[in-house]
Order: sequence, then C-alpha cells, then structure tokens
Amino acid sequence: MVTINCDMGEAFGIYRFGDDQACMPYVTHANIACGFHASDPVVMARTVRLAKAAGIRVGSHPGLPDREGFGRRPMRMTREEVSALTIYQTGALMGFLRAEGVELSHIKPHGSLFGMAQNEEHIAEGIADAAEVFSVPVIAYADCCMSEVFTRRGIPFSCEFYVDIDYDDQGRQIISREHPPISADAVAEKVRRALDLGLTRSINGKDVKVVAESICVHSDTPNAIEVARAVHDTLIAVGRLSRE
Amino acid sequence: MVTINCDMGEAFGIYRFGDDQACMPYVTHANIACGFHASDPVVMARTVRLAKAAGIRVGSHPGLPDREGFGRRPMRMTREEVSALTIYQTGALMGFLRAEGVELSHIKPHGSLFGMAQNEEHIAEGIADAAEVFSVPVIAYADCCMSEVFTRRGIPFSCEFYVDIDYDDQGRQIISREHPPISADAVAEKVRRALDLGLTRSINGKDVKVVAESICVHSDTPNAIEVARAVHDTLIAVGRLSRE
Amino acid sequence: MVTINCDMGEAFGIYRFGDDQACMPYVTHANIACGFHASDPVVMARTVRLAKAAGIRVGSHPGLPDREGFGRRPMRMTREEVSALTIYQTGALMGFLRAEGVELSHIKPHGSLFGMAQNEEHIAEGIADAAEVFSVPVIAYADCCMSEVFTRRGIPFSCEFYVDIDYDDQGRQIISREHPPISADAVAEKVRRALDLGLTRSINGKDVKVVAESICVHSDTPNAIEVARAVHDTLIAVGRLSRE
Amino acid sequence: MVTINCDMGEAFGIYRFGDDQACMPYVTHANIACGFHASDPVVMARTVRLAKAAGIRVGSHPGLPDREGFGRRPMRMTREEVSALTIYQTGALMGFLRAEGVELSHIKPHGSLFGMAQNEEHIAEGIADAAEVFSVPVIAYADCCMSEVFTRRGIPFSCEFYVDIDYDDQGRQIISREHPPISADAVAEKVRRALDLGLTRSINGKDVKVVAESICVHSDTPNAIEVARAVHDTLIAVGRLSRE
Repeated sequence: MVTINCDMGEAFGIYRFGDDQACMPYVTHANIACGFHASDPVVMARTVRLAKAAGIRVGSHPGLPDREGFGRRPMRMTREEVSALTIYQTGALMGFLRAEGVELSHIKPHGSLFGMAQNEEHIAEGIADAAEVFSVPVIAYADCCMSEVFTRRGIPFSCEFYVDIDYDDQGRQIISREHPPISADAVAEKVRRALDLGLTRSINGKDVKVVAESICVHSDTPNAIEVARAVHDTLIAVGRLSRE
Repeated sequence: MVTINCDMGEAFGIYRFGDDQACMPYVTHANIACGFHASDPVVMARTVRLAKAAGIRVGSHPGLPDREGFGRRPMRMTREEVSALTIYQTGALMGFLRAEGVELSHIKPHGSLFGMAQNEEHIAEGIADAAEVFSVPVIAYADCCMSEVFTRRGIPFSCEFYVDIDYDDQGRQIISREHPPISADAVAEKVRRALDLGLTRSINGKDVKVVAESICVHSDTPNAIEVARAVHDTLIAVGRLSRE
Repeated sequence: MVTINCDMGEAFGIYRFGDDQACMPYVTHANIACGFHASDPVVMARTVRLAKAAGIRVGSHPGLPDREGFGRRPMRMTREEVSALTIYQTGALMGFLRAEGVELSHIKPHGSLFGMAQNEEHIAEGIADAAEVFSVPVIAYADCCMSEVFTRRGIPFSCEFYVDIDYDDQGRQIISREHPPISADAVAEKVRRALDLGLTRSINGKDVKVVAESICVHSDTPNAIEVARAVHDTLIAVGRLSRE
Repeated sequence: MVTINCDMGEAFGIYRFGDDQACMPYVTHANIACGFHASDPVVMARTVRLAKAAGIRVGSHPGLPDREGFGRRPMRMTREEVSALTIYQTGALMGFLRAEGVELSHIKPHGSLFGMAQNEEHIAEGIADAAEVFSVPVIAYADCCMSEVFTRRGIPFSCEFYVDIDYDDQGRQIISREHPPISADAVAEKVRRALDLGLTRSINGKDVKVVAESICVHSDTPNAIEVARAVHDTLIAVGRLSRE
C-alpha cells in the first residue's frame, strides 16, 4: 500500500506558494513547512487548520535555515545542528497541532536536508535523533544513508518515489530550485512502472531501481494539482492507496 | 511565596550572552529564549540541558521576530500574529523539553512583546490564546491589559517585579536595550520594600505600587549573578522563596 | 509635470511578486526593493538590468528589517537606525547600479518606514541623513514630518499621490498588507481630480487635499499593469507626464 | 612589503564581538563585515567611523547569508549568487564610506566564502565579477582557484598568511568556528618563517609553502590584540610593514 505526500504551507508573509487547499483531496500526508526554508507562524497555523479540515495526516517538513535559497542549497552542518533544527521545527509544528487536537504523523526533511541525509551519515543520524524524540516515522529514501541509519536504529520509515522531478543514473533525485510541469499520463505511467517493476527512467533514459512506499508531489510544480490527482487516481485504480 | 525568574539561553550562533550556568543556582524559573529575539536551535538544546541539570523549572520566552533589535523594539502586530508566534516558539521549546523529559512550566513574553501586552489588549489576548494551548501559567504584570485579560479568561499568572531595570512614575518598567549594574544592597532593599510595602521607587524617586509574585533578573545586567544571588538570599532570609 | 513611480523588485528567493517588466513601459521611476522588506541580491541585480533596458530611472526603496511583514508593520526605530538602514540599502543598490552604469535617481522609503517618516520627526531626519549622503531627492509626502524636515534641510523631494490605496479623512494613505483592484476609469478620474483640484476622496467619501508630483503605483495591486497604464495614459492625455 | 588585515565590525545588535578599537593601531587594513555573516547597519556605520579615526584602510568583508553559522558553513552557491551577494555587501559598505568620505580599499571574502573561492572556480569568478565592478584588489590566497582566476582576469590581489589559525598538509587554512589563543612569540616566529622561507608548519608538523603579502589577524582569537601587536612589531622590526 502506498501513501501520497505533499510539501505544504510553503508560503511566506505576503508571498503565496502553491495551492495547498486544492491539492489536499488527492494527498494522504501533508508535510508542513516549519519556518526555516519557508513559512512563518501564521502560515503554519492556517495550514494545519486546512489539513485538519481535509482530514489528512500531518507531518513536519523541516528545512535548512536558508529561506533565500528555499532550503535547496546544501550547507555543511553538524549532527548536533541537524538534530536541533529538526527538533526545533517539529516542536514548533506540534504547538499548532496541539492547538487543533491533531497528532503528529511523521517527519519529512526538506530539499537539501533530505539530499544531504541520503549522502552523509551524520546528517541521517541527526534526523534519527529527532525522530526518536517524537516517536514518529520518517519519509525517507531507499538505499542511502537514511535507510541504513534508520534501519540500524529501528526507526520506522517509508521510501519515497518522485513523479515530478528527475532521477540521475544512480537513482537519486535531482534537486532543482524549480520544477517543470509533467502530464497526467506521464505521471500515471511513472507510478505504474514504479509499483509494478520497481523502476523509473533516469534523466538519461536509463532504468534505475526505486522503492515507492510513498509518492511525493511538489506543490510548486506548475500543474501540481493535476499531478496529485493523477497519482491519486492511479493508486485508486490499482487498489494500492493507503491513508495510514 | 515568591519565585525568581531569569531570561536565559540568549546567546546566538558564535555570540555569547550572559552566564546562564552561573545564574542558575539562584533562580527558580528559567525563561528560555526561543530563536526569534535571540538563540538558535543548538543554544536552546544546550540551555534546556543546563536547566535540567540545575533542577530549575523551564518556561518559554517568546519574543518579537527581531533579532537585530533583540526583541526590544515594539512592532505593530495582530492578535493572530502574536498567538502564532507564541505557539511557534513555545512549541519549539517543547521539542527540546521532550528530548530531555522536562515539563513546560510557564510562558513569559520577552521585551517589547511583554511591554506591548501590558498596553494593548489584543496582544494580551494573543498570548492568552497560546497559554490556553499549552495549559501553563504566564509570568505577567499587575494592573495592565495582561492581568485583566488573563483574569477574565481564567489563565493563571504571576506578577513580576524588577530589581535591575527602572520604573516610570506610572509603575511601568522602562525597557532599554542595555541595563546598568546595581549593587547587591540596593537589590536587597528593593526586594524587601516590594514585599513589605508593595512599593518601589520610580526613576524620578516617586513611590509606585508593585506586585512581586516573581522577581525577574536579567542575565545581561553586567553583574547579573550578584543580582540573582542578592534576590535569592533576601527571599531565603525572609522565608518567602518558592520553587513552584 | 508629474512622474509615475512604482515599487519593483519585490520578489524574494523562489517567491514571485508583481510583474515588473510588464509595468515598466508605463512607469518613469522604479523604486527598487533593497533586501530588507523584500528582494535579495540576485533579484536586485536582475531588476536593475530590467529597469536599465526599459530606460526608466532607478531609485532605492529601503524598508524596515521585517521581511515576514513585508515592511508594513511599524517598528520603533531610532534616527541612527533609520539613517543606517537607509544608507545600507541604498548603498547596496548603488553596487548594482555601478555594475550597470546607471545613476541613482532618488530614494523612496517603503511601507511603514514611509508612514513613520510622515508622523515621526526623527524618522524623517534619519531619511534626510541618508539622502544627503547620496545627494538625491526623496519621493515623499506633503504636509507631514517629511515635507517639513526636507524643506528645512534643503533636501529636494516630490510629493506622492496614490491611486490604488485608500486615504483617511486626514489625507493620509492607509497602509494595508494587501491592495484590492481598481478600475482604469476610477484611476483616471482620481488622477484628474488630484491634478485639477488637488483633492481626492477619503475612504469615508470626504474630499481631502493632496499634492500629486509623483503618482505611485503598487505592483501588488491585482491589476497593477492596468492601473499603471491608466495613470500613464491620463498623464499623457493632459500633457503632464515627466520622465525627470 | 606586507600589510596586516583584520576582520572587524563583527558585532550584531546587542551582541559584542572582538575589540576593534584596540586592534586598530596594529592593523593596516580593516575588513568590515557587511551584514550577512555578522554586523548590521548601525554597527557598520560605527565601525567605518572608528577605522577612519584610526587612519587605516577599509575594505568590504562579504560573507555567506548565514548569520547563525557566522558564514563559516560552506553552502552551495552559483556564480550569479556569489557575484550578487558580493556586490550587495560591498555596495552597502560604500554607502557608509561615502558618508565618511573614505575610499573603498579592497574586498576580502569572509570565512567559507573565502574557502569556497579557493576550491571552486565559479565562486572565484563571482568574486572577480564584483571586484571588477568596484575596481579594487582582493585579499586572496596563493595557489588556488582565486589566484588563478584573478591572474587570468587581471584582477590585482594580495596573498594572505594566517598566524592564528591552523594549516593542513596541503597548505590550506582550517576554517573553524572558534580560534584558540596563540602566544606573541609563536606569532613572531610564524611571521619570520613565512617571510624568510615562505613556509609554515601544518597542524601535523609538516612544512607547507605560503605566500605572505598580507597577514590576517582574526579579532575573535581570544588574545587578538596581542596577536596583532606581535605581527605589527615583527613587521616593523624586519622593515617590511606596508600601509598601502
């Protein structure tokens, strides 16, 4: 069974970003930005209320302290820093969850923090430290430092598959600051191949292995709602959608 | 019975601020900065551990989003903004408290947020909104919007008295960006007058009414440790020190 | 003769804001955000190049250090702080102007900094301090602290008139965080009344005096381009448009 | 002939950092922090006035946009970003220089920006882009991307030597967030060896080649003033001190 997660609440102050409300019907897990790479306290409060109204699960989406770069510029961080920034941001979100009587569902690191955790063991350890504090699973990635560290430490995690960003020939996602649109048909085919074959095509056309336990939709993909609906409808069609 | 509260964890990155550890033996309640007017996630994690080791109670010390001004420049804020920034910062602190198995004791607004809450009802309401979410008392001030709003809404609070900053003739503290030192004898006398007579001298030498349920010590007063010890020893001497 | 000024370059990181390029043909003076209330170095560099290509004049648009509030929340500031933040931001812009061989045309304070300078003499003095450093005029406001301070100190300034935000009964603009759209016809009529009669209607329908030496268009008004074109075409029609 | 440069103006808001005024008599070139890794507009204005009063030369000290990490955490940046942030910060400093009638002397990248420019060509190119805009030399490093790029593009630069931080076996400085003290005698010996032999000892005791055209003193070394004086007195003693 497969969930659908989407980064949400990435507006900031006067700036809008994505259309969370329109995406929510097609998503099972909202990853809510926590004020470091995007968002602010008022945006967080409102996004938690939207997610509650939509009846979807809510996790934290902690990012690097780099709003200007939207958390998509890798930075050198220590394990202590990563642990602390993940606890800080997840704790902040829990304040708003407490206000609304909603439980924390999971943690999903954002952007370059996610990318760094794939490649640097001490980053994955820092995230694991925070996951243990909150006793929640992590949305992570297969065959990388995260999966190794979480497996060793007994931290539950689900492996993420992307339909709206490219893969390199090593099967790693290519983090870019902006995402191009992708057609609903292409999305559906990607989902089916990932589920049926455990494969996706890299940017060079090579088949690479993937594990698709949660499918990620980025709300800043220009046609994000269409993408989310295509993922949702495909999972329904193949009887694989899970909301847990 | 009277507590002693002190703002702590106000370092930031490479910058040091005050000597929290040396102050802790003389303090009953630490107000821990939460990353808006001062501090950062690593400083917060360390300060919570210090407070736990010292066996003192820990509350959040949320401030305005103005690190450059150390939260001491009043800003126009809505109730929604104040509620959200207080929930955000207190939630973030709770992440670190959860990591250490420490309970949240109270909320004490910092600097101009505290000052604004004395004078603007909607600011006091925003803080009350957050206090209700966390079900903790607020360290507040007598005869002001805070005391009125909290009384009306049934939110427990204790009234704060200052020994290291000046009062104006209306009995309000004068928030300055820096504090001069004050002798231990002067501190002891201020504490005794406040407890015995409910009075203190304003900056113009006039006696003004005060309520001293918690005595505040600022860690950036140059001789903060001496001040804290003088308050502590005076309360012990008169049999009025409370740790609850 | 009357100029048309527009706040530009108010994007930030991944966030878009307004359509500067589409507005530029109808504007004579671009007020370019300088990284405090909005913008970042890359956005500034690009906006200066756009303005150069459009052949319009370029001034700095310094704001309060409050990106989350878009510089639209008044803060208590000293004269030294206002002077320094205006010099800092205008200097930063001059770096990009130097790179493109463009001269600094003017300074126009943003949002609440502009509003505070109308009402607080020391704020107007701080802006005047910066204007003297750069020897450029200020886009300001009539019958307020700014006009008084600048007149006394011999700092050239032009008085601004607004077509897309409301006036109160004292003839002061009402700074809101978001602006509703306004029809081209309504804009044209406002411009004509301001030029012909020196009057505009307040939010309560009262005629208040205005001085219209430069007409301001906000790029975050939903139909900003239509508004700008209406102002431009009206000024052309009455033979009053100036580009200097 | 050899100059002595020192990073200055690295206070921020209420936070103090180093004792610039006490260091200035022993320094020829002040690298003034520009508000990204440290400092704020008021601190910059004051530091420029101090440097002017001390009669020393003033350059910009642009850093990464990471105040929490004091610009000492490498970040992935594009050439456009580096160029823009260097122009922005240097321009901002020029505002204060203009206010005081002081000329910009040089640019010296701070911390990890300096380190990245040693190793990544596109970072060095971005700094070169800014140096060309302001037509000033760069304080740089020998045998690295900076020296190659600046040589190729005809940008004047001087090579820096460190007495208060460690070198690795490849002759590269080890950027740490804090520096331990070092004795005056050890400083004098390091300076003499660098000048006489073009060598210094790495952290592993190996002799590595260095070029010492400007000696850098960090104001956050605990005994920074003693270090600066030792460098100064040694250069005087060997007749090699230059103020240009």
